[in-house]
Amino acid sequence: MIPPALQAFSSSALPVLDIAGTIVFAISGAIEAARARLTIVTFMFFAAITGVGGGTVRDLLIGAPVFWMHTSIPITACLLSAIAVWFTPARFWPARAVEWFDGLGIAAYGVFGSAKALAYGIPLIPAALMGIVSACMGGIFRDVLAGVPSIIIRPELYVTAVALASGAYVSLTALGLSTTIAADLAVLAGFSLRAAALIKGLGLPHYKR
Amino acid sequence: MIPPALQAFSSSALPVLDIAGTIVFAISGAIEAARARLTIVTFMFFAAITGVGGGTVRDLLIGAPVFWMHTSIPITACLLSAIAVWFTPARFWPARAVEWFDGLGIAAYGVFGSAKALAYGIPLIPAALMGIVSACMGGIFRDVLAGVPSIIIRPELYVTAVALASGAYVSLTALGLSTTIAADLAVLAGFSLRAAALIKGLGLPHYKR
Amino acid sequence: MIPPALQAFSSSALPVLDIAGTIVFAISGAIEAARARLTIVTFMFFAAITGVGGGTVRDLLIGAPVFWMHTSIPITACLLSAIAVWFTPARFWPARAVEWFDGLGIAAYGVFGSAKALAYGIPLIPAALMGIVSACMGGIFRDVLAGVPSIIIRPELYVTAVALASGAYVSLTALGLSTTIAADLAVLAGFSLRAAALIKGLGLPHYKR
Repeated sequence: MIPPALQAFSSSALPVLDIAGTIVFAISGAIEAARARLTIVTFMFFAAITGVGGGTVRDLLIGAPVFWMHTSIPITACLLSAIAVWFTPARFWPARAVEWFDGLGIAAYGVFGSAKALAYGIPLIPAALMGIVSACMGGIFRDVLAGVPSIIIRPELYVTAVALASGAYVSLTALGLSTTIAADLAVLAGFSLRAAALIKGLGLPHYKR
Repeated sequence: MIPPALQAFSSSALPVLDIAGTIVFAISGAIEAARARLTIVTFMFFAAITGVGGGTVRDLLIGAPVFWMHTSIPITACLLSAIAVWFTPARFWPARAVEWFDGLGIAAYGVFGSAKALAYGIPLIPAALMGIVSACMGGIFRDVLAGVPSIIIRPELYVTAVALASGAYVSLTALGLSTTIAADLAVLAGFSLRAAALIKGLGLPHYKR
Repeated sequence: MIPPALQAFSSSALPVLDIAGTIVFAISGAIEAARARLTIVTFMFFAAITGVGGGTVRDLLIGAPVFWMHTSIPITACLLSAIAVWFTPARFWPARAVEWFDGLGIAAYGVFGSAKALAYGIPLIPAALMGIVSACMGGIFRDVLAGVPSIIIRPELYVTAVALASGAYVSLTALGLSTTIAADLAVLAGFSLRAAALIKGLGLPHYKR
């Protein structure tokens, strides 16, 4: 069931991005729970659903075993992240710092999601979308459950930065670049766009027709 | 993994309904984004999630490979639908015309979803429900993400029309009718009921006990 | 595809909990529809999504065939539950009685979900979480679709009681207890905690840092 290309994928540096991205998203989920003054159990629930939600949808769509079902590491990392946020004062998690951390997380996780999809034989366009799903779906679940406007609705360059990272990775590897160089360039491009959005408040134009 | 009955299914006319339904739903998703004055990236996101959402849930439930993962056509159709809606004035998409178009789409997609479920060996009652899931779940995702009351809450005959189409197809084929005749009759029945609802504002009675 | 440990699981008493839990959740979904004064079709939709939603997510995550796809019994039970609620006055379903019934349902279904995950070879921590997903996700879907604050947000001991039942079952079987004794003790522990919460209004402390 696991395609041979997956071997090369597993032995590359990419899987490291997986656990790093999971922790970044888990922390952002727990912080949302902190803002809503919820309980330790809901901290854990939000951390888990935000941390593994996007990767779970990606794995179900591409037909891969769900990544946190055959090892306890990702979900344990989410639960520990929730406990860490619970036991630290809110000022330890300034919104601005979290957003920068998250900006790196979504670019890296977008590239990772697309790389995993390609390793499972998914064509270029759906593979690029799998990067966006991986990086954004956990945050969408978090926002819908918390009842706040989803990241998908905000005009800010957020999904667009992930789309740049995922699209660049898929395009560059299709052009023959090595996965390592393509991943580095793609993460850099996506994170730079997100950084520009954070610094200058860049956003996309709204529909006005 | 793919049952033999699927061969006959694939060579029938039914799969044509798949891409047509996807485009109808994608346009309705992009129009929701237009009403909320969102950006081109959110247009694409809404078009994609509305266009392929219902069929994705159906495929996951019946154990089929997710239909837009092994060909780029459905998702490309969604993205192009979003671009088309973005570049045209809102008056090109009068709510009334969209509703008629959508009424045909849900009846056809409901029949298609049930037919695919039957081809995968799903029993009659769950197969009829798979038609409803296929036709309605994308719109539910669209409404939840946009924060508007879901189609499922409205009293209007909407889900009921899909249920009629799906149920009629499953019943008629179980009675021995050919898939083509059963599909034609079922789409006609579902669309007629939806048309009656649109013309006369027909709705189901509310619970009052 | 089905692991051998599943044989023992299927021949134990646990699967009985499955249909009982499904009916309890279906009734709670239909009652939510009754409170919102919806129609018979939406009663059925809410009963189905609440009744089979949690178990569906569990099965997709652990890689099992979705339980209501190869037998018509669970979904038929949901539809009949909806019809039963529709035809009885609201006073037949006092909120308090439903909550006690639901408290037993979530404890039993949490244990069942974890047992099924263990039977599919899922490690302890994710398996405990699968119990929580099985018991709580249907209610979350119900609340998100109805537009009411999700059970996950309320401070009351609800998810915590499920976590106790699931965690106790996973721990006790890991320590070598028979599945029957572990299941009995775990359901008792989870239901007792939920009962204490219902009687004394017990809740978890909120984040205040």
